[in-house]
Order: sequence, then C-alpha cells, then structure tokens
Amino acid sequence: MMSGEFRKVNARTKHLMSSAKTQPARGMRDFLPADVRKREYVIGVIKEVYERYGFEPLETPAVENIETLLGKYGEEGNQLIFKILKRGEHEKTGEADLALRYDLTVPLARVVAQYKAELPKFFKRYQIQPVWRADRPARGRFREFYQCDVDVLGSKSPIVEAELCASVSDVLMRLGFNDFTIRLNHRLLLDAMMSSAMIEREQRSRVLVTIDKLDKVGVEGVKKELAILGMPQNSIDTILYLTTNATFLALTGELQPHRFSEDNIEANQQWLGLLFRYFKDFSYEDEGKKTASEALGNLEGIVDLSQTTSAARHIRIDPSLARGLSYYTGAIMEVTVPGLAGSVGGGGRYDNLIGMFQKEDIPACGFSFGLERIILIMAERSMFPLNLVSAPADVMVLVWYHKDKDEKMDAAKDSLQLARELRDAGLRVDVYPVRNVKPGTQIAYAAKRGIPLVAIIGDDERERGEVTIKDLRSEQPRTLKRAAVVGAIQDLCVRIRAAELRRDKNLGSNLTLEDDREE
Amino acid sequence: MMSGEFRKVNARTKHLMSSAKTQPARGMRDFLPADVRKREYVIGVIKEVYERYGFEPLETPAVENIETLLGKYGEEGNQLIFKILKRGEHEKTGEADLALRYDLTVPLARVVAQYKAELPKFFKRYQIQPVWRADRPARGRFREFYQCDVDVLGSKSPIVEAELCASVSDVLMRLGFNDFTIRLNHRLLLDAMMSSAMIEREQRSRVLVTIDKLDKVGVEGVKKELAILGMPQNSIDTILYLTTNATFLALTGELQPHRFSEDNIEANQQWLGLLFRYFKDFSYEDEGKKTASEALGNLEGIVDLSQTTSAARHIRIDPSLARGLSYYTGAIMEVTVPGLAGSVGGGGRYDNLIGMFQKEDIPACGFSFGLERIILIMAERSMFPLNLVSAPADVMVLVWYHKDKDEKMDAAKDSLQLARELRDAGLRVDVYPVRNVKPGTQIAYAAKRGIPLVAIIGDDERERGEVTIKDLRSEQPRTLKRAAVVGAIQDLCVRIRAAELRRDKNLGSNLTLEDDREE
Repeated sequence: MMSGEFRKVNARTKHLMSSAKTQPARGMRDFLPADVRKREYVIGVIKEVYERYGFEPLETPAVENIETLLGKYGEEGNQLIFKILKRGEHEKTGEADLALRYDLTVPLARVVAQYKAELPKFFKRYQIQPVWRADRPARGRFREFYQCDVDVLGSKSPIVEAELCASVSDVLMRLGFNDFTIRLNHRLLLDAMMSSAMIEREQRSRVLVTIDKLDKVGVEGVKKELAILGMPQNSIDTILYLTTNATFLALTGELQPHRFSEDNIEANQQWLGLLFRYFKDFSYEDEGKKTASEALGNLEGIVDLSQTTSAARHIRIDPSLARGLSYYTGAIMEVTVPGLAGSVGGGGRYDNLIGMFQKEDIPACGFSFGLERIILIMAERSMFPLNLVSAPADVMVLVWYHKDKDEKMDAAKDSLQLARELRDAGLRVDVYPVRNVKPGTQIAYAAKRGIPLVAIIGDDERERGEVTIKDLRSEQPRTLKRAAVVGAIQDLCVRIRAAELRRDKNLGSNLTLEDDREE
Repeated sequence: MMSGEFRKVNARTKHLMSSAKTQPARGMRDFLPADVRKREYVIGVIKEVYERYGFEPLETPAVENIETLLGKYGEEGNQLIFKILKRGEHEKTGEADLALRYDLTVPLARVVAQYKAELPKFFKRYQIQPVWRADRPARGRFREFYQCDVDVLGSKSPIVEAELCASVSDVLMRLGFNDFTIRLNHRLLLDAMMSSAMIEREQRSRVLVTIDKLDKVGVEGVKKELAILGMPQNSIDTILYLTTNATFLALTGELQPHRFSEDNIEANQQWLGLLFRYFKDFSYEDEGKKTASEALGNLEGIVDLSQTTSAARHIRIDPSLARGLSYYTGAIMEVTVPGLAGSVGGGGRYDNLIGMFQKEDIPACGFSFGLERIILIMAERSMFPLNLVSAPADVMVLVWYHKDKDEKMDAAKDSLQLARELRDAGLRVDVYPVRNVKPGTQIAYAAKRGIPLVAIIGDDERERGEVTIKDLRSEQPRTLKRAAVVGAIQDLCVRIRAAELRRDKNLGSNLTLEDDREE
C-alpha cells in the first residue's frame, strides 16, 4: 500500500527529475498491456496443461541468501549472479549477503530439503518465475527473463520422461505449433559411444561441444574441428558414424550422414536398430556395451510409452544431441521448430542434483520452456488469437454532456448503472472518465483504442427510456429499449468474438489438439 | 533453460552443502502448492474484475536503475531500498548501480514518461507484482510482498473515484466479503478543518498522525495527545468535533463522539449536512471556506455517483481518516473489515506525482489492495473454495504391476492412453510414476494426497476391455466398459465439485454479487 512515501518530492527535486532517464535498466524490459496479454496467454496455456498432468505450482522468493547460490553455477555463473548489499551499516563495506534468483532448480533443491515432510513422495511441480543474470544483453538475451520449469522428483521410471514429452507436446499444440520435433538422446549413450570411439574421458566434454555444432557447420565442419583437437581419424569416423550415421562416400572420400526416414516413428526404429546392432556386434568395450544397452533400452522404453501420447509423432531419437551435459545422468531432450536456430526448450534426467542440500540423492527429470523464444516465434508467425491483441474493452459507455450540474450528475449515474449491468453480464466495460466532453470526442477516443462498441444515453434516449448502440467498425447506430440493451450488447460481443475466431482459424494459427490429431 | 550449469557440484562440495541453511532468506517466503493456489485465486479475481472495468495490465522489471528510485521515498525509504552491486570489477568497490522495485507507483511514473506516445489519453492500468523492502520482518510484514495497484491517469472527474470504489467493492464481494466499509475523506477537507481550528501549518502533519489513532486510543486519548503537542483547548475541541462529531457531555465535561446512523447512505447525508453547515455558518476563514466547499462538493459527487454501483452501501464518509497524506491532493479512501486492525487496502487522488519524470503534471487516482492481509483474513474465515485447497488432481490412473517386460510396457501404455483421453476431456490427471508397485500402495498414495478417484486397468479389466473406477471417499469400486469410462469419470468429477460447492455455500463463504444484492 502507498503510505507515507514520496515525502521528498517537492517542486525543486521534481524539476531535477524531469531530465532523469526513463528507460528501464539495461537488459530489463517494461511490458505494456499488449505485451502482458501475450505473455499471460502463453503462460496460461502452459499452466493449464501442466495442471492437467497433475503438476502443482511452486513459487520461491526472488531473493536468496547469497551462500545458497554461490558455487552452484560454476565460476562463470558466480560472476553473473546479481548480488545485493547487506542492509544498514554494511552498505558502506560493499558486503553482499543476498542475491537474485539465477534459475529455478537450486531453489527447488532448497525447498525439497526444507519441506521434506510436507511434500509428496513424488513431487511434480511447475514453476514459472523470472530469473536474473548479469549477462551482457544481446538480441533475445535479457538480464531478467522467465523460466517455465516442470520437474518430477522421486521416480526413475521412463513413465516420467514419457509424461514430460506428452505435456510438452500438448503445450505446443495448444499454442498452435504442429511442426515441432522433440529431439531425444541419452547421456550414458553418449558416454558409451565416446568410449567405443576410444575418446579419452578428459576430451569428452570438448568433443560433445563440437558435435553440438553439427546443425551449424555440418559433418565435414565437425570432422575438421575434431581433427584440430588432435583426435585420431578412427575415433572421429566412429563418433560421427554413431551420432549422425555418417558413412564414407566411396566416390568423394567424404563423410556423408545417411538421413533416416522423415517419419519420426520409423526413424526411431532405424536408429535403435543401428545402435543396438553396433554395440552388440562391433563394440569391444565391455563396460560401454552394458551402459549402451541400458541407455538404448531406456530410450526404446520412452519412445514406446509415448506411442499412445500426443508426443508420438514428434519424438525423434538424435544421438548427436548434446546439450549442457554437466549434470544430466539419463535421457536428454530438446525441442526445435523449423526456421528457428536453437531450441524452444529442453530438459532431461538429472538424478544427482536435487539432493544437494541434503544427504540422500533424489531422482529427478525436468523440462524448461524458453518463454521469450516461444513468444518471439508466435509473434513472427501471427499465432496469437486476435481478441488478445485488439480491444482493451468490449464496449465503452459514453457520459452525456450537460452544463447543468444536476443533469450532468444524473447522466453520469445512468452511464455507471448501465456499465454495472454490462459488467455483471461478464463484459469488459470502459466508461468515459470525464463528464463535460462532446460525444464525438468520446466516440473518437473509443475508436482510436480499438473498442468495437459504444453505448450512448443521450437526452432523447433518456427521455424515452432507450439506449443507442453503435458498432464502430461497420453498422449504423441502433436505438433500443433500456431493458433490451444488455442482451443486445452481449449478442454483438459474441458475434464480434466469433468473427475474430474465424479469422484466427483462417490464419491457420491456434489449432486445437483435435485438429492436429485428425490430420 | 538449464544449460552448462552446476559444473562445480561434485561429491565434495555436495557434502559441504548438505549442512547449508535451507530456509528462505529472512523476511522472504516460499509458497508451496496450496499457498500458490490461494494466492492465484485472489489475484485471479482481482484481475478479472479490473479487466471488466477496462483496466489494462502493466508489468515493469523487478530491477530499476538506482537513481530511478533514490530520493523518491524519503530518507527512511532510501534506507529500505535493496541495492544491487554493479557488475564486474566494481563489485569490489561496493558501488551499487541497480535496486529492487520498492513500489509500483514510481515505475508507473517512469513508464508514463517513457511511452507517452503509445499510451492512451486516459491510462487505466493495473499492476500486480512483488516489491522488496529491507524492513525489519515482523508478523505480517515481509521483505518481499505483492502490491495490487490500480490507477486511472488523465482525469480529474469524480467518475474516476466512483469507478475505483465500485471495482474495489466488486473484488471484495466476489471474494466473499460483505461486511467491508470504504472509508472516504478528502485531503483538502482535512486542510480546511485544521485551518478553521486554527492549527498551524507546521503542526498539521503531527495532528493528522494523532487523529489517525482514533480507532486505537479513542476520543479522550487523542485529546490528551493533542494537548501534549501544546495545542490550545479550543483547537482540540474544534478538530475533534469536525472529524468525529464529538461534543461535550454536560454531565461529565468529557468529549463524546456522536455516532451517526449505522446505515452508510444515511450517515453520509448527515456528515455532509453537518460539514456544509459548519463551513457556511461558523467558519471565519475565507480560504478554508472555499476549499472546504469544493472538497465537500467532490465527496458529495463521489457518493452520489456511487449510488448506482456496488459500492453504494459500503462507502462511508469519515472525516477522521488521515492515511499517509504527504502526496494525496484530493479524495482518500481506505477499506476496513470488522475484526481486522488496519485496512485491506487504500488509495486516493494524487495529482502532482505521476509527472515526476516529465515536465507536466498528470492527474491520477489509484487504489492498492494488501494481498497478504486479504489472504490472511480469508484463511481465518475459511473463505477459500474447497476445490482450491483439496486435491492436486481429479483422478489418478494406476499403472498395473508386471514382472514380464512386455506386459509391463503394455500396461503402462494403456494407463497413459486413458490419462490422455481424460486430460483431453479437461480433467487434471495424475499417473502413478513407477511401474513395479503394488496396486494397494498406489491407491494409498492417491488417498494420502487427497485425490478423490482412481482408475485401474488390471489384468482382468484389460482382458475384458474394461476399467475399474474407485471413489476413495465413499463408494464401492465400479467396473465399466472402456468406451464408457471417460464419460463416467467426468460425471463423477462434476458431482464431487458440486458437493464441494454446496459445502462452500453452507460455510457462507463465496457469495456472489447477486447473492449480495438480493439481501
């Protein structure tokens, strides 16, 4: 509540302030109403789908004790944490005792340790909150941005991965995406492949970073980079064969990836076939053999379980998927959309992390959507429903102009009364907030703001117990009996919304799950 | 997205961390699922009502440039602002260049100056976001808390105050409050009253602080405190007469406030009559007379305009209402609920503040709900709908136990398929996330979590193409044909919700606007 504040805002300081910077801080953004509505629409769909999957909401404070965060994100992460000065005297010493939330996973680990007794055995939570990183701002990279995390704690079963993939598919389809791919790989499979390719443990993370660039630089590009790392030719050929199914073209002597079927379900069988065979027949390394067979069995299970879910046609095993691999221990996934470099989200299994604040490990698997990227693509593709981005209200009630004080008051009261009835009927209603303004000016204001309807109670109307409705987009004004006007405006609003929905359909966005399945 | 993080979480640091503090930082709170649901319910109602009044959402960053905030909240406020260390080298110098949002009004003023061209002439915005204050935490006082602000910029008309009071009433009635009072006063009326009571300008803010304690210390208490301030007896009697209608009791020689009607509409007429008369006939101070008459006219207008709104019976003129008066310039209001010390929200007109970042003033009037207080009272009064605080899902689908790998997989796929259909039908569905667990254990887990229904596809059921449904609260299990099961579960969920709604009604909470009006 606003109380006792602003004591120092007097004429002198006000003058000084009028030249102050009014932009948001670097890397931060203001969201005006149209932006907020778009963001809330996407967040609303994500929440609703997660709720249907039995996930529960969690919220943690923006500010954590600094020791909760320091040391959890590596040296680079430590630098990027926003640190808050200790309150009081210590401000002068520059001592920081608090810090801004850097991600949603460390707070989850803290919550799990703190409220263990209250939480269910399998804690399925979603958390959609901003995080802050003191990164250098760039196009699409902000210092304040939202994470939409969903995690299942307490189970190692592939049912978890299958349910996560299904919920991710449902979210994207509900938002109107039909062309996404859920790339699926396994941390232990990557390990086994590198082991089989005789790549030293110390080199593996660099090899993974290189393979992750396949999309950008192609097989030959990766081959060159691996050679620069000093890898033997044999290791390079093996790892590229295993991750991309690339084989020598006899003609050119070049490695060419053999693309499996365009159909994901078929491609998954082809990949599983190839890799099961390889590790059974060709791999000499016993430990790797066993690891690979377990990892492949896990991937096969996830793919199989997903057959009956909405993710069935979207999951594609991709042994070249690497991701930030430091803490993953099992399946990893990443969602891509054609035409967008990078992903709209990703996740995986990480069984050794959530227990960081307690003694025992807790198996965990999660997924995180990149909200800003989803909104970016949806804006580029005009995928937002029309009624979201248009009018701030369904109807505006005019306040009739009068010089006489009593009449002015009566006219305003009639307008507020009508507004009340329209609001009780569920409509979003604006009332022109000034009493001595000409009707033409009021109507022009409604039109400029994109409000489709105005309701007018002029002197004639009042005398006859009527109201005039004007559709600002097309129709002539209609004058109706006062008792009939709320129903009539409701009908008009339904028609306007229906027209918007039809336009949405024609634009091809906003397809429902059913539409997608019938294809 | 989680990528490349946690590099340093190895076995050694993990061990160290297991003893780390896992509580949230001092004055900050974690919100577990049941808490989040309650908060989102209240915020949802506030948003929906504001949208119906044509207010639009605004969001600003949690972090502002430090110079945007410093100097705006007085010396005390400066101390309470959380300051963030400058990134990079300057961390060592202790220099802070950023700060956490302290309220929602200064960011609004910044936004208005920055986006002037894009914003409508009358900017009606709501903003529901957390703010941070380095206050000493106490019961009900936190360092991170939400503000729910609604403001109308650009109009000086009392229509604005009337619409604000109406929206506030709608919010409270939708939440189930019927016994609230919107206390209404006017900054200039208070000025005129003190001027008429010959109270010096320099003393006025201290007098207001004292009068604000009427609820706590009573008329005699206030009288004593004013005497300690060195006020002449005549001034004390006059100001107490004007603010509380207190007159001498001949018998005891004590001041006793004469209470006006219990009916607010009647009491408002009595107050307006008394004060109009007083300033017309008894006040000798010309300037005060004119000011008082304008202020009283404004209050009369707000009360009159509110006659047709939901606030009609709840507004009560109270000349003793003071609030944090430094920046208000017109009407002020505060909402109280019986049995709660302090208010659930307040606001008023402040015409000289929003222009702080630009050259011209912008008239403004706003209101702010205290979310934490509303939630506190609603919890104490059991006003939350039952379905909000009970089950995390409508139904849980069991995963049948099998030793055979293929059968185990088929059973899990059947469960996921059923879950998909139930989710597509709009239900919240949990699937037991492990495959080799006995049915009894799974059912016990659902019961413990308060999930009312379980669906079971056992071996017998699968063979016969059936599903068993069990209502864990009462009924015997029923076995149904697979094709009929989704509809049957939907019906059961509707019945469970209806029963919850009936219990809500019986508890007397959750009354709708219509219920209230029919009284």
